[in-house]
Amino acid sequence: MEHLHQSFTIKFEYNVYFTTGLFDTANTLFSDFLLKNNTAEVQRKIFFVVDSGVAEAHPELNTQLKDYFYAHPGIQLIPDILIVPGGEGVKNDPIYFEQVVEAVNTYGIDRHSYIAAIGGGSVLDMVGYAAAVSHRGIKHIRIPTTVLSQNDSGIGVKNGINYFGKKNFLGTFAPPVVVFNDDSFLLTLSDRDWRSGISEAIKVALIKDAEFFTWLENNAALLVQRDMPTMNYLVWRCAQLHIEHIASKDPFESGSSRPLDFGHWSAHKLEYLSNFEVRHGEAVAMGIALDTVYSQLSGRLSVNDSNRVIKLLQNLGFDIIHPLLEVHRDDSPILTGFEEFREHLGGQLTIMLLTAIGVGEEVHEVDVELLKQAGKLLHNLQHQQVQ
Amino acid sequence: MEHLHQSFTIKFEYNVYFTTGLFDTANTLFSDFLLKNNTAEVQRKIFFVVDSGVAEAHPELNTQLKDYFYAHPGIQLIPDILIVPGGEGVKNDPIYFEQVVEAVNTYGIDRHSYIAAIGGGSVLDMVGYAAAVSHRGIKHIRIPTTVLSQNDSGIGVKNGINYFGKKNFLGTFAPPVVVFNDDSFLLTLSDRDWRSGISEAIKVALIKDAEFFTWLENNAALLVQRDMPTMNYLVWRCAQLHIEHIASKDPFESGSSRPLDFGHWSAHKLEYLSNFEVRHGEAVAMGIALDTVYSQLSGRLSVNDSNRVIKLLQNLGFDIIHPLLEVHRDDSPILTGFEEFREHLGGQLTIMLLTAIGVGEEVHEVDVELLKQAGKLLHNLQHQQVQ
Ligand SMILES: NC(=O)c1ccc[n+]([C@@H]2O[C@H](COP(=O)([O-])OP(=O)(O)OC[C@H]3O[C@@H](n4cnc5c(N)ncnc54)[C@H](O)[C@@H]3O)[C@@H](O)[C@H]2O)c1
Ligand SMILES: NC(=O)c1ccc[n+]([C@@H]2O[C@H](COP(=O)([O-])OP(=O)(O)OC[C@H]3O[C@@H](n4cnc5c(N)ncnc54)[C@H](O)[C@@H]3O)[C@@H](O)[C@H]2O)c1
Ligand SMILES: [Zn+2]
Ligand SMILES: [Zn+2]
Repeated sequence: MEHLHQSFTIKFEYNVYFTTGLFDTANTLFSDFLLKNNTAEVQRKIFFVVDSGVAEAHPELNTQLKDYFYAHPGIQLIPDILIVPGGEGVKNDPIYFEQVVEAVNTYGIDRHSYIAAIGGGSVLDMVGYAAAVSHRGIKHIRIPTTVLSQNDSGIGVKNGINYFGKKNFLGTFAPPVVVFNDDSFLLTLSDRDWRSGISEAIKVALIKDAEFFTWLENNAALLVQRDMPTMNYLVWRCAQLHIEHIASKDPFESGSSRPLDFGHWSAHKLEYLSNFEVRHGEAVAMGIALDTVYSQLSGRLSVNDSNRVIKLLQNLGFDIIHPLLEVHRDDSPILTGFEEFREHLGGQLTIMLLTAIGVGEEVHEVDVELLKQAGKLLHNLQHQQVQ
Repeated sequence: MEHLHQSFTIKFEYNVYFTTGLFDTANTLFSDFLLKNNTAEVQRKIFFVVDSGVAEAHPELNTQLKDYFYAHPGIQLIPDILIVPGGEGVKNDPIYFEQVVEAVNTYGIDRHSYIAAIGGGSVLDMVGYAAAVSHRGIKHIRIPTTVLSQNDSGIGVKNGINYFGKKNFLGTFAPPVVVFNDDSFLLTLSDRDWRSGISEAIKVALIKDAEFFTWLENNAALLVQRDMPTMNYLVWRCAQLHIEHIASKDPFESGSSRPLDFGHWSAHKLEYLSNFEVRHGEAVAMGIALDTVYSQLSGRLSVNDSNRVIKLLQNLGFDIIHPLLEVHRDDSPILTGFEEFREHLGGQLTIMLLTAIGVGEEVHEVDVELLKQAGKLLHNLQHQQVQ
């Protein structure tokens, strides 16, 4: 019998808005979005999940949300707001995923209602996953509150939770319906979290945009001083580069190429080995340092370019190496990270290295000896600086 | 600051093959598919999950699989084959979902390896969901073994498990990479399961293809006698209509229209109320009867057309009403099914009715009094026939 052939395309679209004071009643950005997407016939609901770190730093948020939806009716705010712990822990224990799924059931949140998440990348990843699999996908609104989530994780198409101690073992590709980046959230970040997300901007600059890298070098001091207009530009440009990259390549990663994961293979492993004491962005900074120096030692990148990268990281206050990342020993746990990364990717190891600032190159082999040397070199550099 | 706009399309493609004796070593359909999709660099793996009903009825399958992959190397067969209970129970207890996810971890199944499921619609739905969320989506091969899964569920884009006692509460839209319909599996079906899936063919004929409906009327006796060529045509045509429909409309159901769910709103509820004693296909047959007679009573469908539908269902040996579906009382549990169906759909109730055989019409309101009458009428008809 003749075989049947199925073929169709699905279009995904969303906007990323930038604003200050998203839930000030005078700010209609959010309500405009909801109104525009509302069809008269149905009563839609919106359910909020909030990062505990945000809730603590913004005790007014709860009241603000209620006032906002009172002032802008047309959608039913579920008055119970779910607070979940901020940070990686929320992705490690499936109980939080369960809480969101349970809320979908309890409050009768349907496929045309919204689940909005306000928080860092960890909370967004977990809530995004729960929304994606409830009723086969509830509309998801992201309101990222960290630098990292505003310029990278919150504006992309991936979600996930950790399982078997492995990062993002469970997850889906599920674009949000809209993203709102509100810079007033960034004011309350710890210095650590303010800094942490900057590494994703360095990452994307290094493989895509030499000019942006120079801009980062020139503005490192202002970033350290927490100058908001400078951070606003960084977030915007970094988000733009990510958005463009996702659309231009293979959004749902059906191939094995993951160029945007520069510096990430060791970062993921380090986060895990450190029991998530090391933040994602901090681990990425160290991963960038490792893969940059490896690029230099393997003859791809000039010493000068390599030094510029290390210097920028250090000027921003990043550690460039972690004891767990020093790959001196053959049984170094970080080396087993390769195997896991390969598995997660799908069999073939593909790692991005640098041939110049702004120019990446994909390689499929890694020389373990050079990697060890890179670790040693970084150890010495870090040590010098500390003295 | 200017907002950013993300927009991209994803193409989904797969074939549905029809064969006899898929795992006969001489049959290269399966190995050809794997070979064609194999890139030399990586060692891919394939992991099988098998429906216990299939495993019992086909005790040779295990050895056959091993012989097949021995004869057709190039992919690594995970020698442990996971057997999970056949039937709806496998969707009710999350432990089976966990088992598949755990196997992904244990056997290091990556995003370019395959999880193949052999079984009825229930097993395929559960395994498809586990595959879709492991590593954000492992390639999934479906080998449906019931009439229903070969002509409907196994060739579509949905998966899911039940949660909070609700059908498909958790799930995704995730097309398989290929489907193999092997008619030799159908030989071992119980009469119940042989018949059950025929209701999906009636469903799709009723809303899409009057000619196919006439063919079903003319071939009802052969179907009851389990004539295989007749069943082969039924499965092929029904699958084709489903495939076309999915591609032509809104594959991931972003709107609230679900025309292919004719007869299903009450069916889902009945399955649940009967504690899944009633099969999906059996419930659909009763759902078709209910919505057909309702179409007639509400003045949409001629008495003659309505009678043809009921007669075909009865000729095939279907029950046309279930005590739990008799909507005499105001507090009839089936009436609350409306509310849940609306929620699952996304706020607005949309139900497909008939205006003629082969012609559906979407309505957003249902007259409960007429629905009760329809239940009564079906009760009487069923009763007559039994006498
Ligand atoms: N989905 C993706 O594509 C993607 C991409 C990159 C990273 N990630 C993931 O994102 C996670 C890291 O996210 P992150 O860097 O945003 O950190 P995070 O979400 O772990 O948050 C860090 C800390 O900041 C607190 N916090 C958040 N917003 C705050 C605010 N406005 N004021 C005060 N405190 C606040 C949190 O409570 C938490 O304690 C990791 O799990 C990483 O894997 C995902
Ligand atoms: N994903 C979708 O789009 C979709 C569409 C329609 C239905 N479904 C779902 O499919 C499920 C029903 O599937 P089904 O009708 O195939 O029934 P089923 O999967 O529940 O199987 C019925 C019985 O048949 C047995 N069996 C399967 N193959 C056999 C074989 N070849 N020989 C002997 N026994 C065999 C099973 O072990 C089980 O006991 C329901 O959960 C329904 O919701 C899903
Ligand atoms: Zn990152
Ligand atoms: Zn069905």
